[in-house]
Amino acid sequence: MTEQGGNDLPEVVRDAGEWRAGVRRWQAAVETVGLVPTMGALHAGHLSLVARSASECRRTVATIFVNPAQFGPAEDFDRYPRHLDGDLNKLRGTGTDLVFVPAADAMYPPGYATYVEVEGLSRQWEGASRPGHFRGVVTIVLKLFQSVPADIAYFGQKDYQQSIVIRRMVADLQLPIEIRVLPIVREPDGLAMSSRNAYLSPDDRRRALVLSQSVRLAARLVGEGERDARRIADRMRELIASTDGVALDYATLVDPDTLAELTEIAGPAVALVAARVGATRLIDNEVIGDYRLQTTGYRK
Amino acid sequence: MTEQGGNDLPEVVRDAGEWRAGVRRWQAAVETVGLVPTMGALHAGHLSLVARSASECRRTVATIFVNPAQFGPAEDFDRYPRHLDGDLNKLRGTGTDLVFVPAADAMYPPGYATYVEVEGLSRQWEGASRPGHFRGVVTIVLKLFQSVPADIAYFGQKDYQQSIVIRRMVADLQLPIEIRVLPIVREPDGLAMSSRNAYLSPDDRRRALVLSQSVRLAARLVGEGERDARRIADRMRELIASTDGVALDYATLVDPDTLAELTEIAGPAVALVAARVGATRLIDNEVIGDYRLQTTGYRK
Repeated sequence: MTEQGGNDLPEVVRDAGEWRAGVRRWQAAVETVGLVPTMGALHAGHLSLVARSASECRRTVATIFVNPAQFGPAEDFDRYPRHLDGDLNKLRGTGTDLVFVPAADAMYPPGYATYVEVEGLSRQWEGASRPGHFRGVVTIVLKLFQSVPADIAYFGQKDYQQSIVIRRMVADLQLPIEIRVLPIVREPDGLAMSSRNAYLSPDDRRRALVLSQSVRLAARLVGEGERDARRIADRMRELIASTDGVALDYATLVDPDTLAELTEIAGPAVALVAARVGATRLIDNEVIGDYRLQTTGYRK
Repeated sequence: MTEQGGNDLPEVVRDAGEWRAGVRRWQAAVETVGLVPTMGALHAGHLSLVARSASECRRTVATIFVNPAQFGPAEDFDRYPRHLDGDLNKLRGTGTDLVFVPAADAMYPPGYATYVEVEGLSRQWEGASRPGHFRGVVTIVLKLFQSVPADIAYFGQKDYQQSIVIRRMVADLQLPIEIRVLPIVREPDGLAMSSRNAYLSPDDRRRALVLSQSVRLAARLVGEGERDARRIADRMRELIASTDGVALDYATLVDPDTLAELTEIAGPAVALVAARVGATRLIDNEVIGDYRLQTTGYRK
């Protein structure tokens, strides 16, 4: 291992072979390994994943990698927040044993040509607004799963569609890993935690509340007996349209498994919303009804 | 394990989880595992892969799976030869420990949506003639590599482009496996061994010789000092055109790594040929000059 982390700082590894060897060392000792893939700029949402992993697995590893393949050419790859020292400090004392911080050109060397696609589920919503986004996501997730043969990987429900797409990939490719999706962690006023919240001006920060308000509104309307999914989505859109400086991308109710847009609420549903607040694109969601994002994959 | 193979017959496993468990049992004992993926209808080419695996690895596993995803809608998936009993007999006494024979709907269950693509290298030659073919190939190979965490996988050079595409996928996804590509095994008269040779009528069997003759011609011309790759390819095409009942698809000289068509022979090259002999599409190739299909991937 390369960089010894004193003072409870997790150990940092930058080379995939070394990383794999480190994890295999534990597996040879039959220690369960939990993996928390992140793009850094860690917040309480990420830390909830680390905490769950540390509570369920003997070893916890995290990755910090701002994955260029999941950003569109006009997106915020260049300015995405990068705070490695701060992130390592946040991981101090969390039970994180290793942090994998690969270089971009080690993950995508010259001549790199291999991409994974999850058809269907990747096309709508975030996929429609961010062409190629999920291709980049599942490709890097698969690569990380190859680099670290973990037993369980942890993702946040904030990226709802991402978790569904990854779940499908894991099932389809029969990857020997379980996927756990943990609830959204929110600020006290309801804003979903996101590394991109750091982009928000004080005014935008206030306006951004309308996203969480819109998915809560959807849940409340269903709770009150409304079954017309289109009417609920219209109410979400009206709420967002009433907020200056917020440009709606989509607001919808979908089937939790297929992500197909619902016309009627006849079972569990997910309210999805995406909007641009000032220059910052944010997403949020809420699962409505009795639905659990199940774990998938083979256990080794 | 399900079906006990008496009389040196290899043990047959049909369930991926059981298969994985069987292999992990060996890996826990630090036994090297070699994997030979096949579509069955085994011939001496396949058996050369098995023999090499048995000589290099403590354990040898083979897969027999006619992969629907790599066949086009107008191709020969339905009539592709399937002879499981005969195949198991051919594996008798070869040192094959396990044979994985999955059901098609276990590999591609309803809702299956995940595919791998190797861009660039998959586009030309076989990829141009068989759209989606390599997507199906690398997807199933990745799935098999997930099912059996082998140390070394063996492929035949007869499918030259396939081996280059798989090599690229393994490097790009950082799969923890080595790829070995073994020489083409030929009939005494030069015909490259292929399960599809069984389709050939006696007349077509005779005509099919022109494929191996054409790649040998290319090698001979280079040996005689010809450096104009287009002139050599023209000579290959003329030879094939002179054979009634053989319809050329492509004949070319390419860079062994990039598969880019060459204009000049300035280093190693590969002569590639594809043609339809009667109703049967066949391919052949010959590496010209000093080039070794290197092994790739991480060793665990």
